[in-house]
Amino acid sequence: MSATTIRTRLRGIIPACVTPMTAGDELDHVGLAANLRAWSETDLSGFLLLGSTGEVVMLSEFEQALVLEVGRRAIPAGKLLLAGCGQQSTRGTIVACQNAARAGADAVLVMPHFYFKGAMTPAVLADHFRAVADGSPLPVLLYSVPQFTGVPLPPETVARLAEHPNIVGIKDSAGDARVLDLTRRLTPPDFRILTGAVHLVLPALGAGMADGAILAAANVAWEPALAVEAAMRRGELAAARTAHRRLMEVSDVVGRYGIGGWKAGLQARGLVGGLPRPPLPQADEQARAQIAAVLATAELDPVRR
Amino acid sequence: MSATTIRTRLRGIIPACVTPMTAGDELDHVGLAANLRAWSETDLSGFLLLGSTGEVVMLSEFEQALVLEVGRRAIPAGKLLLAGCGQQSTRGTIVACQNAARAGADAVLVMPHFYFKGAMTPAVLADHFRAVADGSPLPVLLYSVPQFTGVPLPPETVARLAEHPNIVGIKDSAGDARVLDLTRRLTPPDFRILTGAVHLVLPALGAGMADGAILAAANVAWEPALAVEAAMRRGELAAARTAHRRLMEVSDVVGRYGIGGWKAGLQARGLVGGLPRPPLPQADEQARAQIAAVLATAELDPVRR
Amino acid sequence: MSATTIRTRLRGIIPACVTPMTAGDELDHVGLAANLRAWSETDLSGFLLLGSTGEVVMLSEFEQALVLEVGRRAIPAGKLLLAGCGQQSTRGTIVACQNAARAGADAVLVMPHFYFKGAMTPAVLADHFRAVADGSPLPVLLYSVPQFTGVPLPPETVARLAEHPNIVGIKDSAGDARVLDLTRRLTPPDFRILTGAVHLVLPALGAGMADGAILAAANVAWEPALAVEAAMRRGELAAARTAHRRLMEVSDVVGRYGIGGWKAGLQARGLVGGLPRPPLPQADEQARAQIAAVLATAELDPVRR
Amino acid sequence: MSATTIRTRLRGIIPACVTPMTAGDELDHVGLAANLRAWSETDLSGFLLLGSTGEVVMLSEFEQALVLEVGRRAIPAGKLLLAGCGQQSTRGTIVACQNAARAGADAVLVMPHFYFKGAMTPAVLADHFRAVADGSPLPVLLYSVPQFTGVPLPPETVARLAEHPNIVGIKDSAGDARVLDLTRRLTPPDFRILTGAVHLVLPALGAGMADGAILAAANVAWEPALAVEAAMRRGELAAARTAHRRLMEVSDVVGRYGIGGWKAGLQARGLVGGLPRPPLPQADEQARAQIAAVLATAELDPVRR
Repeated sequence: MSATTIRTRLRGIIPACVTPMTAGDELDHVGLAANLRAWSETDLSGFLLLGSTGEVVMLSEFEQALVLEVGRRAIPAGKLLLAGCGQQSTRGTIVACQNAARAGADAVLVMPHFYFKGAMTPAVLADHFRAVADGSPLPVLLYSVPQFTGVPLPPETVARLAEHPNIVGIKDSAGDARVLDLTRRLTPPDFRILTGAVHLVLPALGAGMADGAILAAANVAWEPALAVEAAMRRGELAAARTAHRRLMEVSDVVGRYGIGGWKAGLQARGLVGGLPRPPLPQADEQARAQIAAVLATAELDPVRR
Repeated sequence: MSATTIRTRLRGIIPACVTPMTAGDELDHVGLAANLRAWSETDLSGFLLLGSTGEVVMLSEFEQALVLEVGRRAIPAGKLLLAGCGQQSTRGTIVACQNAARAGADAVLVMPHFYFKGAMTPAVLADHFRAVADGSPLPVLLYSVPQFTGVPLPPETVARLAEHPNIVGIKDSAGDARVLDLTRRLTPPDFRILTGAVHLVLPALGAGMADGAILAAANVAWEPALAVEAAMRRGELAAARTAHRRLMEVSDVVGRYGIGGWKAGLQARGLVGGLPRPPLPQADEQARAQIAAVLATAELDPVRR
Repeated sequence: MSATTIRTRLRGIIPACVTPMTAGDELDHVGLAANLRAWSETDLSGFLLLGSTGEVVMLSEFEQALVLEVGRRAIPAGKLLLAGCGQQSTRGTIVACQNAARAGADAVLVMPHFYFKGAMTPAVLADHFRAVADGSPLPVLLYSVPQFTGVPLPPETVARLAEHPNIVGIKDSAGDARVLDLTRRLTPPDFRILTGAVHLVLPALGAGMADGAILAAANVAWEPALAVEAAMRRGELAAARTAHRRLMEVSDVVGRYGIGGWKAGLQARGLVGGLPRPPLPQADEQARAQIAAVLATAELDPVRR
Repeated sequence: MSATTIRTRLRGIIPACVTPMTAGDELDHVGLAANLRAWSETDLSGFLLLGSTGEVVMLSEFEQALVLEVGRRAIPAGKLLLAGCGQQSTRGTIVACQNAARAGADAVLVMPHFYFKGAMTPAVLADHFRAVADGSPLPVLLYSVPQFTGVPLPPETVARLAEHPNIVGIKDSAGDARVLDLTRRLTPPDFRILTGAVHLVLPALGAGMADGAILAAANVAWEPALAVEAAMRRGELAAARTAHRRLMEVSDVVGRYGIGGWKAGLQARGLVGGLPRPPLPQADEQARAQIAAVLATAELDPVRR
């Protein structure tokens, strides 16, 4: 998909998909495919595989390849497949982008190098992302998630990178409206800004600070997320606020348990969650009860497959 | 003013007023009164004196009393006078609230103790604020400004304090939409949430997360701040976004220089700025030129007095 | 006392004295004098009044003056009286230094402005401290306590300030050996470095990174602190390590309860502790029991007065 | 090597070896072997391969295996080979430990999972390290490096892990003497504490808080590091302070440029440095000149091979 086409289609709600694991800690690629087929019957715009929520840092190179192969076959042509490709080295990141292209992804999501965070000056970051964008056969989305990486992407740096023809947007999971606002004001209108922070979907769409969202919460609560986005598109503030509350109430409870929580929530909705890979903790009995309760309150019943 | 009345009137845009100083580093109370009279001819809902932007931490006890006396005489009855009263000790804070009442303020703004920040557990914070609210003759607004204090006010704690009949709202300058959203969802509808973060005025009003704003930027750029608020009240998203851009462009430039910047901006608008008290740095020549330029671009001309 | 004399005498162990309060939250100046007289019979080199541990941020201007007056009369001529004089404004700090001189203090301890921490660039900090040193009738000790102020004093800035004839040393409570080491290497040998971190007394004296210590722990456990210092002066590493363990075991337990803990410990040692000023929490029953137990284990019995 | 033997031998100075890369960004395993042979003629106790300084996060699985194979052949039997084996998942970490055992390493160094740092409670961390220690054929050294991981290892957790028969010590690169002191006081005397912070070698050996050191600085400046350690072993404080200054002066300058600096320094000493892998920046001309100058001042000439 060309950089121009992807700029047109990067809108709406996209789940940052979990990667199901079996009780024996093996990749459950059959379960992943089943989830993708179920989600594909909704208005979700596409899917992010190998993101943070997809536990990419837990997967071997072989497992990462398998996720993309299985994902591509399960996702219909009308929906986007985004692939997380950030590695610590520039050369490793480019190899991952090439692998994603071979697997048929539509675009890649690239986080900064973050281990030696002190060395990541704006100039070093910019050189890294430009080298990746030059080497990647697929359009690149920057990925800012300082709560995990400790490396913020300053809006001024993002603005400079937005001039690269193969850098089409950003997933901003920093969750800081100030950063989102400044990024919006410093970048051209066709630079796609997708928030990764569930609490910002409504306010950022209202203020024109974002074009869409890539959300862990959309694994489990895609209906209210889609409802917020649709209401804001129609300018219906009151309806959007109601859907926002429903989305937030689910997200507050399930998100408290991290990936173990999203996986338990997915299971509760009749899809395939499985367990997080250790040392990430599982949702225990009490967590599962709370998750079931909040899903019931929000009328998010098990889907029929 | 009763707690009920104040809840009704705490809306709209309120500047966190600077305290002008002469070139000899003396309090310019005449200049302060002139500013208040000029601002009172606009739609601003009221004024915060002795806030952070008012350099309260730089003022002696005598100077603090003088600011309130002069302010009360300059502010018309139809506008609110809020007084910053946070001190490090509980007893000192209550004394400040009593002084503010004697001076004729309408409500007080109380920040947490913050020097021994490690000791400020939610329980200790709650006890402190409850003791202050019990002892204060005036309704209390909590004041959260962790960028200065290092002490965040967790929404759960705020929600518990909102049950106190004399605690009527919060000025949230943390600038974190997640915190604002959670505070809104955990507190009753008549608990007044005023954002102190200029970038959040539009998104927070849109999402229903705030009822108004107390802004340093409103010292200098009250027109676009009032325009954002008015447009959002009427549900005019496009007009609000235009005013927001104008407000942010001014705020980005002037705010870069801190209190020295707001004072220079005030001077450029024909009001009385004066200098910040050392060690706070003044806006230098280059800063003043940038400030003049951005005010010209935003068509914020000197007011006639 | 001249800057030269003070440089000679700033060595050894100095307690950062607590300020006793009565049950009615009034300053107990009689108790303070009693403590100072008891401590003066030991090898302590001097006393810091109006430091962080002295709750200076909780005291009114009148109370601060009273502490210095009472302190000066209780402290014998052979012991140093250091006065905490850091205020948020440059002019307020100079006034405090002048007051300390009138009260008969030997030197002042000055922390940086810290409320608007973002404005405190190295250049602004240096200008502030130089203005204070120019205006202070007494020799100045810099005071670095970033855990409370959020404003570190970079060793390079300290080195430049060490060139001022009226800046004689630093109390470094940051507790970071890297900072201490660099400060030592960048400053002249007669610049006095006193650590405020109890765990660093032994290692910093051993490595030549400090000349002495100003310690909250010395309110309660002056004997082991003096023993560490004396052993290191004689090069007796094994004896120093034994005293260090004893000092640390007391400090770990008592320090866990902050100023409430030091005051309870003082009471347990037969001196006058009283209560911390709210919102600082008191040591509760359980805390007092733990404190009594650790003092017993360390054989720190009540002193006879 | 048994856990008991390794406890005896984990002392002295161990470099955290850099991994040389060619100008084409390929692993220079021949250069690595040459360095190891040169260093093996000194009093260094052993070598850490695949540590942070070894750019392990930049290396593919194949490259990691090659480093261990080549390293084992170059290191004489009398010197320890420690292998960095921390991966994000528990199962990946155990696999790395098994690979290290097959390659002939003597012990492994394991950092915590750190991507989802919020989930790493003390209990989760302890379970992870225990599972790794159970599964590892080699004795385990914990590795604390919060400046890179954002996950501190609390001394209380370390103390509990020290009870595991296959966990023999810790490399503490946090550089916080308070943590080192508490770790020492909470663990048994045969638990080996190696500091990874160059400024702490002298003070920590003096205070008995460490048994030795694993240092990036020892790639380039092994002589003064060995001199500090030898002097402290003999109780010669003055000689240790002199060597410490020499070590720190080199470390301050070279370390400013990170891994690019250590590699340039290695080259200047006649060993094989090569370049860091992008996006890590190279030492530029100016940096190389500064590095050459400080090595000359410290009389650290090129070694003859």
